[in-house]
Amino acid sequence: MDGKGATSGRGILFILSAPSGAGKTTLAKLAISKIPGLKQSVSYTTRARREGEVDGKSYNFVDKAAFQKMIGQNRFIEWAQVHGEYYGTALDAIEKAKAEKSDILLVIDVQGAAKLREKKVDGVFIFVLPPSLAVLHERLGIRGTEDVREREKRMETARNEIAASKDYDFLVINDTLDAAEQEMEYIIRAERCRLKRRSLDFPDYTPHS
Amino acid sequence: MDGKGATSGRGILFILSAPSGAGKTTLAKLAISKIPGLKQSVSYTTRARREGEVDGKSYNFVDKAAFQKMIGQNRFIEWAQVHGEYYGTALDAIEKAKAEKSDILLVIDVQGAAKLREKKVDGVFIFVLPPSLAVLHERLGIRGTEDVREREKRMETARNEIAASKDYDFLVINDTLDAAEQEMEYIIRAERCRLKRRSLDFPDYTPHS
Repeated sequence: MDGKGATSGRGILFILSAPSGAGKTTLAKLAISKIPGLKQSVSYTTRARREGEVDGKSYNFVDKAAFQKMIGQNRFIEWAQVHGEYYGTALDAIEKAKAEKSDILLVIDVQGAAKLREKKVDGVFIFVLPPSLAVLHERLGIRGTEDVREREKRMETARNEIAASKDYDFLVINDTLDAAEQEMEYIIRAERCRLKRRSLDFPDYTPHS
Repeated sequence: MDGKGATSGRGILFILSAPSGAGKTTLAKLAISKIPGLKQSVSYTTRARREGEVDGKSYNFVDKAAFQKMIGQNRFIEWAQVHGEYYGTALDAIEKAKAEKSDILLVIDVQGAAKLREKKVDGVFIFVLPPSLAVLHERLGIRGTEDVREREKRMETARNEIAASKDYDFLVINDTLDAAEQEMEYIIRAERCRLKRRSLDFPDYTPHS
C-alpha cells in the first residue's frame, strides 16, 4: 500500500525561495540532511565555480555552448541570464527524482518560481522570511551600509522579493534555524499525506470481497 | 509578529472523519493531548449519555425541545437526525475558538463533513483509514460476523464512507496509532504555516523605512 507514509518521498516537487540573507541555502541543506526521501535539485550554471562549491552538488557547472545547446533541446523548465551568466533548472533531474519517488527540493529565486507557476508545474511553493523587518534589514546588511545607492538597491530587491511571497503556498519564518527547519519538515511530511498523493489500496472494494 | 509559528493555533477548523472502526475518537484524543493550541469541538446530541461519557466533553447532551429551539435559531452549521436522535455542530463553539485563535478539531461523519463543504466552510478536511482492506474488515468485525445481513450492512456503510474520502484534503493512515497521530500533527502544524494563515509583519515596508 502506502509504504512508510509521511516518512517516504512521493515525487513531490518543493520549491523554496527567500530574500537574500534569509538563510535559504543553509535551511535547504539542513532539511535534506534530516528528512528521508528528500533530495536537492541541482541547477545548471555557466558562472565560475566559487571556493567551496562542488560541481554536481552546488551546481552543475557547464560552459555557455553547452548551456545554449540544452536550451535548444528544451531541457530546462526554467532558465535565466543574470549579469551575463546563465542559470537553469533541468527537466530531467526532476523527472528522474519523480520516477524514483524521491521528493525534490528546488532552491530558486522568485523569478524562477514565477516561471514554474506560469507553466503550471505541480509543486509546493515555500517562501522563507526572517521574523521581522528589523531582522531583515540587519541580515541584508542594510543597517550597516553607508553607501546610499547600495542601500537603496538592496531595499528595492528585498521589497520586490517580499511582494512575491504572496504567490507562495507556505511561509516559513526563519527566526531560529531549528524552528524554520521544523516548519519545513511539517510542510513536507504533511504534503506526503495529501489525498492526491496517496494511492489508496482499496481499488476492488466490493460488498462481496 | 507571528507568535510561535507552527506551534500555536490560528483559528483553523480541522474536520476529521473515518469509517467506523478506524480509530478516529482515540486519534482525536491523542492529537488534542499532544498538540498545543488544538481543541476539540463538542457536538450537541439528544441521545442518552452512555457510560463513561461526560456532558460537555463527549457531547453536549440536550433534550429534543432544546435542540429544536437551536435549529430554529440557526445555531447549527450542520445537524442530522439518526435513528430518531439529533446530532449537530453548533456555530458558536467554533466562532469562539476562532476568536481565541485556537485551532479546532471537529470529529464528524462523512455526511456532516459533506454539509460543511456544501456551505463552503473554510476547513481542512482529514480522512482516517486503516492501512488495508483486510485490516478494515477485521476492525469492522466483518470477518467474525456470522449474520449475513449484518455483514452486508457493515460492508455497505464502509464502502460508502471510503468512497467519500475522495472529497477530503488529507488521508491519514491509521496503521499504528503513533504513526497516525504523527501524520495528524504534520498536517495541523503545516496548515499553520500556510500563507493565508500567517499575518506578515511587513505592512509598511517602504524603500525609506
